Amino acid sequence: MSSTRDIDNLIEMMAKLPGLGPRSARRAVLHLIRKRALLLTPLSDLMQTVAATARECLNCGNVGTEDVCDICTSEKRANGELCVVEDVADLWAMERSGVFKGRYHVLGGTLSALDAIGPQELRIPRLIDRVATEAISEVILALNATIDGQTTAHYIADQLDGQVTLTSLAQGVPIGGELDYLDDGTITAAMRARKSL
Amino acid sequence: MSSTRDIDNLIEMMAKLPGLGPRSARRAVLHLIRKRALLLTPLSDLMQTVAATARECLNCGNVGTEDVCDICTSEKRANGELCVVEDVADLWAMERSGVFKGRYHVLGGTLSALDAIGPQELRIPRLIDRVATEAISEVILALNATIDGQTTAHYIADQLDGQVTLTSLAQGVPIGGELDYLDDGTITAAMRARKSL
Ligand SMILES: [Zn+2]
Ligand SMILES: [Zn+2]
Repeated sequence: MSSTRDIDNLIEMMAKLPGLGPRSARRAVLHLIRKRALLLTPLSDLMQTVAATARECLNCGNVGTEDVCDICTSEKRANGELCVVEDVADLWAMERSGVFKGRYHVLGGTLSALDAIGPQELRIPRLIDRVATEAISEVILALNATIDGQTTAHYIADQLDGQVTLTSLAQGVPIGGELDYLDDGTITAAMRARKSL
Repeated sequence: MSSTRDIDNLIEMMAKLPGLGPRSARRAVLHLIRKRALLLTPLSDLMQTVAATARECLNCGNVGTEDVCDICTSEKRANGELCVVEDVADLWAMERSGVFKGRYHVLGGTLSALDAIGPQELRIPRLIDRVATEAISEVILALNATIDGQTTAHYIADQLDGQVTLTSLAQGVPIGGELDYLDDGTITAAMRARKSL
């Protein structure tokens, strides 16, 4: 049993991935089929491994292969600084810049009245809990400079007011900009120039 | 044994696919991990199936799951017309337009002095063989309107001169344009208005 329908289905699945469309999915699948021994089989095997082992950190929401991620378990990262980001891609962008030595909290999105996303739909209760129970001295709100990102930052700042030093990324983040698009130098500058709320 | 290295490797492999880059690969992998049961496992399974079953047609170079593809074995497609394309993606573009009812021959690229790609590196000997042995009345050179595409078309026209009616796609294909970028209507118009060489 085999059919070109499998190839069509593969293209269709790939086309739905963020950043791809039908045309790039077709190109990618043709490329994979041409190099099937060298690329397609290893890629499939790796996806199987990742599907079986990847999970979200129960503490911070980072993606890893343990119930609690490397950053949360590393004692070196317990410097009292907690960086709040919207998405794992933002955490990765921050890690690539190498400027931040503390721990993270991944919200999993932003508050949005339009999409009916309230604090309970995000990791905000868990954040409040962490600030109350962990030895955290500073919470850095590294949310995107979008309306939803800033609304979310203000909501969190209200919730944590008086319990901890609150800062946000300062200069370098362009209006409407998203962290994951920025180069390492911009992120580094924004982190170094962070300001009190 | 598992590690975030698997996730990094997966991103790296995805980033090398045509049309993707590091950023879209990261986004795609995060999306796949978030929906791992729903997306990552089925995608991996499908890739395994395609890796095991996909192959190039021994006759025309099309991609399918048999030694000789559906189009080559279909008697309905034996109308004497043979459409020569550079790439399987071009064959697919032609099929999407639905205008062509004959068979194909996929060269697997174009002649290129710069890249040292001569007739032997493409399926040109096989094309000459097909024209000599199959009941072919017309060869339609549907190559890209690029310099290399047109050089290749002229080379093939020279080789087949006097043996068969030679045509090429006419109006509708923009200068420098590639078939796989065109909409179905443009391909249909170009095919209908094809001209003798
Ligand atoms: Zn963690
Ligand atoms: Zn074939």
